[in-house]
Amino acid sequence: MYQLFIANKTNSSWSLRPWILLQQLAIPFEEVQRYFQPDKKQQKLDFLQASPTAKVPALHHNGEIIWDSLAIAEYIAEDYPQVWPRERNARAWSRCACAEMHSSFVALRSQCSMNTQKFVTLDQIDSALAADLARINQLWTEGLTRFGGEFLAGSRFTAADAFFAPVVIRLIHYGLMDYLSPAANAYAKRIYQLPSMQKWLTQAEPEHDRPIRNP
Amino acid sequence: MYQLFIANKTNSSWSLRPWILLQQLAIPFEEVQRYFQPDKKQQKLDFLQASPTAKVPALHHNGEIIWDSLAIAEYIAEDYPQVWPRERNARAWSRCACAEMHSSFVALRSQCSMNTQKFVTLDQIDSALAADLARINQLWTEGLTRFGGEFLAGSRFTAADAFFAPVVIRLIHYGLMDYLSPAANAYAKRIYQLPSMQKWLTQAEPEHDRPIRNP
Repeated sequence: MYQLFIANKTNSSWSLRPWILLQQLAIPFEEVQRYFQPDKKQQKLDFLQASPTAKVPALHHNGEIIWDSLAIAEYIAEDYPQVWPRERNARAWSRCACAEMHSSFVALRSQCSMNTQKFVTLDQIDSALAADLARINQLWTEGLTRFGGEFLAGSRFTAADAFFAPVVIRLIHYGLMDYLSPAANAYAKRIYQLPSMQKWLTQAEPEHDRPIRNP
Repeated sequence: MYQLFIANKTNSSWSLRPWILLQQLAIPFEEVQRYFQPDKKQQKLDFLQASPTAKVPALHHNGEIIWDSLAIAEYIAEDYPQVWPRERNARAWSRCACAEMHSSFVALRSQCSMNTQKFVTLDQIDSALAADLARINQLWTEGLTRFGGEFLAGSRFTAADAFFAPVVIRLIHYGLMDYLSPAANAYAKRIYQLPSMQKWLTQAEPEHDRPIRNP
């Protein structure tokens, strides 16, 4: 069985991606959690057991460690092709969207770091964050329009939705939903209400008594 | 036929990745170049024709635009499986290595930006760059040892080699080869001497009369 190493659910946006993908596709896996700690040296030793980069998520399977979120998606897809859309053009689009999330949106990620337990109102946003939000809106609106489903690349939840799930939390928790088109806004609300998303948010709640990073 | 949009060969490390992959695997493609320009507004308009993010590389094929380097590798791999190693564990390792390159090594990328036409000697390196170099060395040495070939994931040139090709140029041009193990050092020299790498470097030379970014 897959073993998925994740960090705390309050903050670890990268952990959420493969976790919600496996949950939504009802793929069996064992979850192993590692917590951020006040002792950073001990924390690193703990995380190095999960991954050679001391970063999670990491998937352990048949003695192999897959230490990156995109590589995890591709690894799982070899066993469960439903990770990606069936049509080649939707699959290509989805991989681009996931890869863009993987390397970009630096302003959004640094200025609006994920915290499932806080709601913040930003008085103003700078041009870098505005550009990220405009691109998110463009991308989501394009996917929803082009593939015509309730999810980014059609009628099923696939990897693209998983990769943008933490962005949904950020937009809602930082009061940024007005930057979205009506279609993208409705999409974000749908994702936030998914049972697996609600499960993650609920499971994050007891983490308040553990050291967590602040946004 | 694939159409690969790239930027100038002197500086565009991301362009080099799919270009050298296609070249080394002898996959036919048409190359379309876009140049960095003094007029940034015009430059952006030109690049937007290639890609929705105004960034290259971008692959155009059958009316579809694939706008990210990792997604391009996966797209090509659906037509040409030799993009990845045949064995599942080597394939999983390779995807992790490519994805780590895609999202990390920020110090190396910012402090040692690729310039094929310059050789620089760094007097000293900071701890962030040292950490990146240590991880590059660890990763390369692991691949070369574990899969036992002349390339990172075995006896054939595959996507992992393509993704680290710009790092090879950086290490050689910034005088950083001493940070590598003997095996990783020899690997870097092998990649630098590949005919397709030499072709890229030669084709970059006439670009000196066009505006290029400085390292």
